[in-house]
Parts: sequence; C-alpha cells; structure tokens
Amino acid sequence: MNERLQKQIAFALEIDKEKNIFRQTHLSGHGRNENDAEHAWHMSIMAYLLREYANEPVDIAKVMLMCLIHDVVEIDAGDTYAYDAERLKTQKAREDTAKERIFSLLPDDQRDELIALFDEFEAGETIESRFAHAMDNLQPLILNNSNDGGDWKEHGVTAEQVYGRHCKTKLGSERLYEVTDKMIRDNINKGNIRS
Amino acid sequence: MNERLQKQIAFALEIDKEKNIFRQTHLSGHGRNENDAEHAWHMSIMAYLLREYANEPVDIAKVMLMCLIHDVVEIDAGDTYAYDAERLKTQKAREDTAKERIFSLLPDDQRDELIALFDEFEAGETIESRFAHAMDNLQPLILNNSNDGGDWKEHGVTAEQVYGRHCKTKLGSERLYEVTDKMIRDNINKGNIRS
Repeated sequence: MNERLQKQIAFALEIDKEKNIFRQTHLSGHGRNENDAEHAWHMSIMAYLLREYANEPVDIAKVMLMCLIHDVVEIDAGDTYAYDAERLKTQKAREDTAKERIFSLLPDDQRDELIALFDEFEAGETIESRFAHAMDNLQPLILNNSNDGGDWKEHGVTAEQVYGRHCKTKLGSERLYEVTDKMIRDNINKGNIRS
Repeated sequence: MNERLQKQIAFALEIDKEKNIFRQTHLSGHGRNENDAEHAWHMSIMAYLLREYANEPVDIAKVMLMCLIHDVVEIDAGDTYAYDAERLKTQKAREDTAKERIFSLLPDDQRDELIALFDEFEAGETIESRFAHAMDNLQPLILNNSNDGGDWKEHGVTAEQVYGRHCKTKLGSERLYEVTDKMIRDNINKGNIRS
C-alpha cells in the first residue's frame, strides 16, 4: 500500500471510535442513548429527503458530507450537551485540538478539505451549513418528541433554553422551523418542557 | 403539517430502528457488535474519501446515498450474515417485503426514488452500485482485520468463503481489491481464517 492509501485507511479505522461517543438523546421507543455515528447517519438521510424545505437551494452532496463528519472531533473532545453551560465554554478549544489531530491522519489535500468543511459547518454562514444545522437540531427533536420529551424532562430544560437552541433552524429552513415550533409548543403544553 | 411533510417525518422516525439491527462485525478495539446505521455511516464516509480508486469515475452523491439507505430493509428483515447459507436463501424475499412497507411511508416520488436506488444497489450492475458494494465489503474488513480476525475465528470461516464474498470488491475497485487480498492473506497466514 502506498502512503496515501495507508493514511486514508488509517483515518477510516480511527473514525470507528465515533460509535463510542454517546449523546444525551435517546433512541425512539424509549431506547438507549444514541451515539454520534448514528446521529450523523440519521441527519444525513434527513437532509437528503427534506432538502426541498431549505430556504435556498443547497448543494446536497456537500450538506450530506458535512452532516456525516461534523462530530468526528468528539472522538477526542467528547460530546457537549446543548444545555451544559459549563462545558460549552471550553467546547471550541477542545474541538480545535481534536480537529487537527484527527483530520491530519489523512493525506494533506483531504485533511485541508475536511477541516474546511468542518469549519464551514461551525461558522454556520453558508446555506449548506445552515441547513446542516437545521438537521442537527431536528433529528434529536423528532426522537425526543416521540419519547414524550424524556430528554428534556431528565435535564429539567426550560422553554427559553429549547427555543435558544432551535431558533437557528429558521436560518436553514423556515418551513422546518414551523414544525419545530409546533413540537416545542406541544411539549410545553404537556409539561415536558418547563415553561 | 401537510401530508407530504408528515410522511417524510414519519419515515425519518421509522428508520431510527435501524440502530437496533446488529451485525456480526465488531467495532475496533475488540468492541461490541456494530449496528446497521453505524455501518452505513462508516461506508458512506469511506466511499467519499476513497472514490479516486473506483474503476471508473462515480457519481459520489449517489454512492453515498446508496450506502446510507442500503440496509434500511433490515429493520423488518433482520441482518443476514454473509456466511449464513440458510438465511441467505430467504434473504431476498424477506427484504422485498420490507422494502415495500418501509419506503411506502414516504411520499410516492421519494418512495419510488429510494426503491430504485435500493434495487440498483442490489443488482450491482452500475459503477455506483459496484463501488458501494466494495465499501460494504471493505468497511467490516478493516474492522475485523484490526481485531485480529475475531469475527472470522468466531464463525470458523474459510478462505474460500472470504474470497467468495470479497472477490466482488474487484468489480468496484481493482486497487482496493489489492488491499483486500493483502489483508485476507495476512489473516490466513496468522491462522485467523481457515485455509
């Protein structure tokens, strides 16, 4: 095997570890916690099927790849729960260090390409990254909604916190934000989210 | 929510169940069994990073989507181990029934599109489906190779069986078949695969 292919295979093996990074979200049917690889797979399919609702036409291959790789850094940095104010403060520094180590396993051109894609997702300024963020929010929302808001109840999350996170869905898709808003209001009414 | 969007969200929720379908492959580091959603996520990223080795240029967005959805039918049909001769006999019938039920949760146009993509993968006649099959083989191979062939040892798999499966990688990528062949020979030499 030449060096290029060796590096590509080494990276492919390394990202296997993402399957061991568990999130606060639970699978439907009141299942176990979801891991990052499953979340990324789910988001990516949803992005494809729901792309007609993006505020502007998106390069869907780019969105899908962004969804697939956006949590690779958590192999080193761990998952940061969306409502954990303390860990959110250090998230960027932890993820930047991880980003350099993990993507540098790849040949230089692919390292640069994936780091640029990761940074684009994080910045959330392009239509693709905004739609990918909408999926990053909507995917756990539909699971949690199907579980009677169990994840919000477990953490005593407030309506203000939930809206603070999900309002960004609007930037990617006004239409899917309407769905989001309806689900959040239903869960407030049921007492699953503290009002 | 209108009917179209309701159907799309219902499908998105249904495929969450793929995370509960476990395969015979184990995660690297002698980890637990892998599930179908993780496998599909992994294959899809590998397809993107290794696309330069496809025998002919591929429509990579199509390959990635094919990788992401190719095991959805196993929600109903269950996983069929590549070396389980008995269950392989009934695999197609089980998967055809599942395909109709699951993809029919989507609006008609998306149902037809995903069924066509699934069928294209199964037929393995196009360059995209052949490259996707190469990923379907290579992804568990690199995990199993990293675990000293634990999955082959557990099932007493023979070299003939392993080559019978992996020879199809050649149709998608001659170059990646060279890597495959090297890994298989190493594992035969170590006694991890029965010769």
